[in-house]
Amino acid sequence: MRIENDAIGAVEIPDDVWWGPQTERSRHNFAVGPDMPLPVIRALIEIKRAAAKVNGSRGNLEQPIADGIVQVASALLTFNDHDLRSQFPLKVYQTGSGTQTNMNVNEVIAHQASKAAGTTVLANDHVNQGQSSNDTFPTAMHMAAYAALGSLVSTIQHTVGTMKTQEQQYHRTVKLGRTHLQDATPITFGQEVSGWRATLEQDIRAITAARDTLRALPLGGTAVGTGLNTTPAATKAIITQLISDSGVAYTSMTNKFHGLSAHTELTNAHAAVKTLATDLMKIANDIRFLASGPRGGYGELTIPTNEPGSSIMPGKVNPTQAEALTMIATRVMGNDVTISVANSQGNFEMNVYKPIIIATLLESITLLRGGLDQFNRLLLTGLTANADRMRADVDGSLMTVTALSPHIGYEVSARIAQHALRDGTTLREAALKSGKVTAAQFDEWADPLQMTRVDD
Amino acid sequence: MRIENDAIGAVEIPDDVWWGPQTERSRHNFAVGPDMPLPVIRALIEIKRAAAKVNGSRGNLEQPIADGIVQVASALLTFNDHDLRSQFPLKVYQTGSGTQTNMNVNEVIAHQASKAAGTTVLANDHVNQGQSSNDTFPTAMHMAAYAALGSLVSTIQHTVGTMKTQEQQYHRTVKLGRTHLQDATPITFGQEVSGWRATLEQDIRAITAARDTLRALPLGGTAVGTGLNTTPAATKAIITQLISDSGVAYTSMTNKFHGLSAHTELTNAHAAVKTLATDLMKIANDIRFLASGPRGGYGELTIPTNEPGSSIMPGKVNPTQAEALTMIATRVMGNDVTISVANSQGNFEMNVYKPIIIATLLESITLLRGGLDQFNRLLLTGLTANADRMRADVDGSLMTVTALSPHIGYEVSARIAQHALRDGTTLREAALKSGKVTAAQFDEWADPLQMTRVDD
Amino acid sequence: MRIENDAIGAVEIPDDVWWGPQTERSRHNFAVGPDMPLPVIRALIEIKRAAAKVNGSRGNLEQPIADGIVQVASALLTFNDHDLRSQFPLKVYQTGSGTQTNMNVNEVIAHQASKAAGTTVLANDHVNQGQSSNDTFPTAMHMAAYAALGSLVSTIQHTVGTMKTQEQQYHRTVKLGRTHLQDATPITFGQEVSGWRATLEQDIRAITAARDTLRALPLGGTAVGTGLNTTPAATKAIITQLISDSGVAYTSMTNKFHGLSAHTELTNAHAAVKTLATDLMKIANDIRFLASGPRGGYGELTIPTNEPGSSIMPGKVNPTQAEALTMIATRVMGNDVTISVANSQGNFEMNVYKPIIIATLLESITLLRGGLDQFNRLLLTGLTANADRMRADVDGSLMTVTALSPHIGYEVSARIAQHALRDGTTLREAALKSGKVTAAQFDEWADPLQMTRVDD
Amino acid sequence: MRIENDAIGAVEIPDDVWWGPQTERSRHNFAVGPDMPLPVIRALIEIKRAAAKVNGSRGNLEQPIADGIVQVASALLTFNDHDLRSQFPLKVYQTGSGTQTNMNVNEVIAHQASKAAGTTVLANDHVNQGQSSNDTFPTAMHMAAYAALGSLVSTIQHTVGTMKTQEQQYHRTVKLGRTHLQDATPITFGQEVSGWRATLEQDIRAITAARDTLRALPLGGTAVGTGLNTTPAATKAIITQLISDSGVAYTSMTNKFHGLSAHTELTNAHAAVKTLATDLMKIANDIRFLASGPRGGYGELTIPTNEPGSSIMPGKVNPTQAEALTMIATRVMGNDVTISVANSQGNFEMNVYKPIIIATLLESITLLRGGLDQFNRLLLTGLTANADRMRADVDGSLMTVTALSPHIGYEVSARIAQHALRDGTTLREAALKSGKVTAAQFDEWADPLQMTRVDD
Repeated sequence: MRIENDAIGAVEIPDDVWWGPQTERSRHNFAVGPDMPLPVIRALIEIKRAAAKVNGSRGNLEQPIADGIVQVASALLTFNDHDLRSQFPLKVYQTGSGTQTNMNVNEVIAHQASKAAGTTVLANDHVNQGQSSNDTFPTAMHMAAYAALGSLVSTIQHTVGTMKTQEQQYHRTVKLGRTHLQDATPITFGQEVSGWRATLEQDIRAITAARDTLRALPLGGTAVGTGLNTTPAATKAIITQLISDSGVAYTSMTNKFHGLSAHTELTNAHAAVKTLATDLMKIANDIRFLASGPRGGYGELTIPTNEPGSSIMPGKVNPTQAEALTMIATRVMGNDVTISVANSQGNFEMNVYKPIIIATLLESITLLRGGLDQFNRLLLTGLTANADRMRADVDGSLMTVTALSPHIGYEVSARIAQHALRDGTTLREAALKSGKVTAAQFDEWADPLQMTRVDD
Repeated sequence: MRIENDAIGAVEIPDDVWWGPQTERSRHNFAVGPDMPLPVIRALIEIKRAAAKVNGSRGNLEQPIADGIVQVASALLTFNDHDLRSQFPLKVYQTGSGTQTNMNVNEVIAHQASKAAGTTVLANDHVNQGQSSNDTFPTAMHMAAYAALGSLVSTIQHTVGTMKTQEQQYHRTVKLGRTHLQDATPITFGQEVSGWRATLEQDIRAITAARDTLRALPLGGTAVGTGLNTTPAATKAIITQLISDSGVAYTSMTNKFHGLSAHTELTNAHAAVKTLATDLMKIANDIRFLASGPRGGYGELTIPTNEPGSSIMPGKVNPTQAEALTMIATRVMGNDVTISVANSQGNFEMNVYKPIIIATLLESITLLRGGLDQFNRLLLTGLTANADRMRADVDGSLMTVTALSPHIGYEVSARIAQHALRDGTTLREAALKSGKVTAAQFDEWADPLQMTRVDD
Repeated sequence: MRIENDAIGAVEIPDDVWWGPQTERSRHNFAVGPDMPLPVIRALIEIKRAAAKVNGSRGNLEQPIADGIVQVASALLTFNDHDLRSQFPLKVYQTGSGTQTNMNVNEVIAHQASKAAGTTVLANDHVNQGQSSNDTFPTAMHMAAYAALGSLVSTIQHTVGTMKTQEQQYHRTVKLGRTHLQDATPITFGQEVSGWRATLEQDIRAITAARDTLRALPLGGTAVGTGLNTTPAATKAIITQLISDSGVAYTSMTNKFHGLSAHTELTNAHAAVKTLATDLMKIANDIRFLASGPRGGYGELTIPTNEPGSSIMPGKVNPTQAEALTMIATRVMGNDVTISVANSQGNFEMNVYKPIIIATLLESITLLRGGLDQFNRLLLTGLTANADRMRADVDGSLMTVTALSPHIGYEVSARIAQHALRDGTTLREAALKSGKVTAAQFDEWADPLQMTRVDD
Repeated sequence: MRIENDAIGAVEIPDDVWWGPQTERSRHNFAVGPDMPLPVIRALIEIKRAAAKVNGSRGNLEQPIADGIVQVASALLTFNDHDLRSQFPLKVYQTGSGTQTNMNVNEVIAHQASKAAGTTVLANDHVNQGQSSNDTFPTAMHMAAYAALGSLVSTIQHTVGTMKTQEQQYHRTVKLGRTHLQDATPITFGQEVSGWRATLEQDIRAITAARDTLRALPLGGTAVGTGLNTTPAATKAIITQLISDSGVAYTSMTNKFHGLSAHTELTNAHAAVKTLATDLMKIANDIRFLASGPRGGYGELTIPTNEPGSSIMPGKVNPTQAEALTMIATRVMGNDVTISVANSQGNFEMNVYKPIIIATLLESITLLRGGLDQFNRLLLTGLTANADRMRADVDGSLMTVTALSPHIGYEVSARIAQHALRDGTTLREAALKSGKVTAAQFDEWADPLQMTRVDD
């Protein structure tokens, strides 16, 4: 153990770790819940590196110190998750500004940079120079969320790709449409899939729009938004550096008071992710109901057999990927409440729910990415439509009556359908029996494939 | 118009209304959203009456004034909703303590009691004597919620009654059980209904337990919980009077600081109502899926034809009561978040989200009462099971294989089910073909009705 | 009473109403909760009018019938709310497709148009021609929400205007910044207000972006999305007519299957409204805390005296508009859950939670519009800053020490602040006593106004 | 690697693990999110042990096999978390029945029991004998939740204990009461703490009541609730064994259909936990506001200095434990939505959101336990009241005017308070100047300590 001091006294720290007294205090005082997500740590390290470069070149840091910080930060950014975690042990449920994680980053870099530079590098005065947790942490939140949302969009796009393939494959596979869970007029399975696909494309648009707002960084606000202890020029230079390092077109947020005290952009970003979750719940439910059976359900789809389904009922195959995905959806719906409440609770110059906001947003994204990827690979891609069963349901259905309505009127049509239902006959039989339609007319008007308008 | 004064000046008030200046101010300053629910108004009037009786008998109010208040309050309590509303125009979204509604009640009673008593009766000094909005309003919240929850429980009990009838009716009507939406081992429809019924009975227990906690009234806390300007003896006497008036076994809340600043009891009461909503969503979904079709769905149930189902598809019958009820369920689920957030936002000696808490709780209860009553009367009671379809699905199913498992093992059983599925045969055929089971054994072991254990 | 028939039989209808049998059935079967919002009714009437024009000009309707429909629809659109409501009595909690409200519109127009045209106009065959509830209702949802969101944005802009005035007025009024509720470095009140303003401007951007997606209309999908019984050309013509009637740049949604079965766009629109609510909760909380006191609180702001504050404590003035607004915020946060759950529950070709989705969205918008307008007029506009109190708090604060940090280091600065706190002295006294700073240095470095960077 | 077979084929499994093919499949197919909580695993192991004892003694299992299972289960129950986890690698987001985790337990026990028994022990036929995931998993959910809630109650009780100490310590420490954030009549700090304590005691009662309902176990329902492949007698014997093993008074749930398809009890249990979270948010907010300052805030309380508060502002001490606890509260509020939606989504004989329900409930409990324990130890216990500051605020306040009201009336009192505010004088000065009160009367009536009624 070694002894180090911070502003309130001495702390014993294990010899083999790189962090300092504030990290050590936090580690003991906050022992509950998950670890701070590594993408936030990585973003903070990127900020420290960019700041040191700028502070060095502007003469605010002695060059060896700046170089030491840059070198250490660059090395840390190459660490894999396991190695990085070993130096960043703090929890999400810590101080609400993320100060302790910002200090963890400052301390680790200072400790290692002191060796690299051959001179004492200080966590606050050097690594954190011209910064505050209050601006670096929300900046890191935006950076981490921006990257994660990009990956999520990719995953959705893969799923859209799978659906497009199936749209083509089942372009003319007629099946019963259903509204209110009741038999309705025919569609093709390709059309049904196209509805799912169009929904996901709308989600992509919304997520992309929300993501775009995250490029504005509150960096430069420092402690309360005024930019005390830094300058707009320095901030501009650091952001230019971050753009260069990442390829992302970051901007400097116009009003930093907003950026520290309200997380409007992140709240809206999660909301778009939450809407995706609700849409996926709908799609996954459709698929598992259409695959219900094999004998006593809709039976329109067959899903891949990935696992035995039951510990007591032999031969059962369950839509497990749909179940995992819809469980994820419920999580994301709950997470949206967490973030909304958290965003509502800012006070004065700061919102002290930053760690829970970013951790929850990243959790939702990670779960949906992973869950949707699995769902796409292990269920959707292997889905097959049972065209015969689909066709049989259409042929037995009464709702093709709708196609008669423009010709013989709604009231007469309704009576035909009711007679067929009451008598247990086909619609065609009832229609002919009514005397309002000839066989030729019926076959022309009530052709299921034609009714889908798929060839229009 | 007449002119009246309150603590901050003169106010013009329409001649034909009974309220005073504070009501009139609030009416102009708060014009958004729904009106304060009348059950809260009625509960406040009951409190005013009980307080005046006690204040009169204890010599704190001159007897004619006390009598006037009692007389007016009693008269108001006989008003129908429309007439009562005409004197109580204030909104839910007003001051967060409900002070303006408490003053509305004080002012209306004072105005009318002055006539009745032939002397000036003051809203604050007489009608509100020994009280504060801060204790009367949460007391009225408890009283109104307690009564409403009692009615909700009655409505659930009626539904339970309908289900019990159907349990008996379909006691031995075999059908396919379904887990993961996949065919599972047989049950009877009576058993399935019993599951719904048992769920609702559990909801009744939870609601009743939560309701019971509302009998504790924060009355007597006055402004901040200390009971300034009243005495424990007076409070006790008023609560005794309320018990006598209502027949409800109210108690005096032990700690009034709690009662003004935290609405733990009401939050938990809504939570139990919300759980009911989620359970009803499950039950209503079951029913509408089981009634899906008529040709391309589960088709196990037939629901009453209450309305034409479609403006374009003649002959369609939709599960509209289930739709209304599940829409209500989503509302109640949202309402729970409203109340939870509101309860979290108390500060120091008061929670200033009282009107939204009680209005939202009463809304949930009213919607569920009305929606469940309609659902029970117009859908559930008229539901009929299609026993033939149910039996056919059982006979075609593969999951009776589970009954073989204890005799021939899980692995062999699973293979039999898979062969039947692959070959499109019945389970019986596949079982006999396997050579592991004789026909006699199969018929003994895999008897669907016996498998339901309904006669055990 | 008159007798009318629909597809399932005869219905008695009061003589003096214009609706028909399906409305009458629904009115009896669904008696719970609020009425269907009138903006939805108006949008449906606009759709019926545009459809009749197009159907007439395309020869699908006889011209007198088309003209009758157009004439009646135009007349209905001039009705005030009260008169309109008298013909549209149905509830939100009805069938989940809104079919009954669509039929209410069809029936009322048919009834009146029959008189106008001097020939029988039918609700289904004529007024609803080429349409289905399943596409007209979600189209009306988009139209109503689009308009309402426009009004909300205007209200936010008014509030932004008030804030801009205050930013200028208090541009150089120094006060204590606060983070973690603890004293932090100085800001000006103008800067603090600018943070609120920037937050609302971000909300405007997000709401506007979400609103823009609502211009895409699912009209033309008819029953299940295929467009059965209409044509793309007819749909295009109707949308062109709607654009011409409204001045809104509507488009025809590319994929109608999506538009009937998923309400991604409306869910995201509400999400942006919900984020606004959370931001307003933060701002309203800031104001009421800064106005806390008058003697035992922050005391930085004085709010207008709109009403007496207490029924028991004379002279009390409460932040009532802030209370109403934050109660509204809790409602909107709950409403977001309602809509999210509702959107997740679509099945196959339809989501049957349409009425609750649009009613809840419109409720949130209406409450926020009204509540924010009141808050702006009755509280924000009359807010005054107590510059003397603000300055006194800055002068007594220790956090100006932060300005010393770049000159004498973080550790030494921290010790100076701690000594001042322990000894009850000013920071200046403690700084000079430390010997690390001269009086001239202190006054140069730690000038509060200069520390706010407001003149940079 | 070794090869094992399950019902759908061969699987390669690492040689050094004890699980079998179904676990291995799940491990590959479900790789997202957190691991299944160990308390659920332990409860399942307890069930397997009890079942084997009963199955052995009833002659359903050969005694060596039963003994082997019992021996292995007992050994596993002594494993620490790390060792146990190494054999139970599956995720929460798996199949929604928890089947894969039930099979993980079956497979691990079968693998080890085969060695112990010297004969092949089968996962399904032996370890899972007379059981199904569909009844064992929800039984394990109840058992795990019951235990966790017991620990949570203990933690709340410790906090209640701390508060009781402070109630006594500050029994007569007068301070300003505050309602609407505005100065109100005096209370003592002991009274204020008693309000917090009473709120937590109400939470304990609600949590205890909800917890009590979890003692009813759905064990014995097997696949769909009918109890196929087991008997009521066997179920009763297993539950008797579980009672004996655990000391908990478990019962056999009356209706197993309910127990498999609806999680009413768990949903209500989480709701009570969620209400606790909202109450803790209120309490933590009170404390951090009362500790705000040190110079520019309420300044009534001093909290322990656990960490340096700022990376840029030296000397800052932040209420970090309150921040962590309120972040946890937002999480729990979100979790309640997750569980509510999950509970609403059961279908037919099963709810397939079991893993997310139990994992989310346990997460909420674990976070609140840990967060509240930290809060109690590191913040609450070390809290000190600044009696001088409290007294000064009372003496400067105007709201003691309320004590004059019963003597001189509400209107006159209000004017006195307004004059004092306008003139910047004390209330006493304004009261005497009004001529309505003598000095002796004022001092008698407006004695702050007497106004708190603390000695009544």
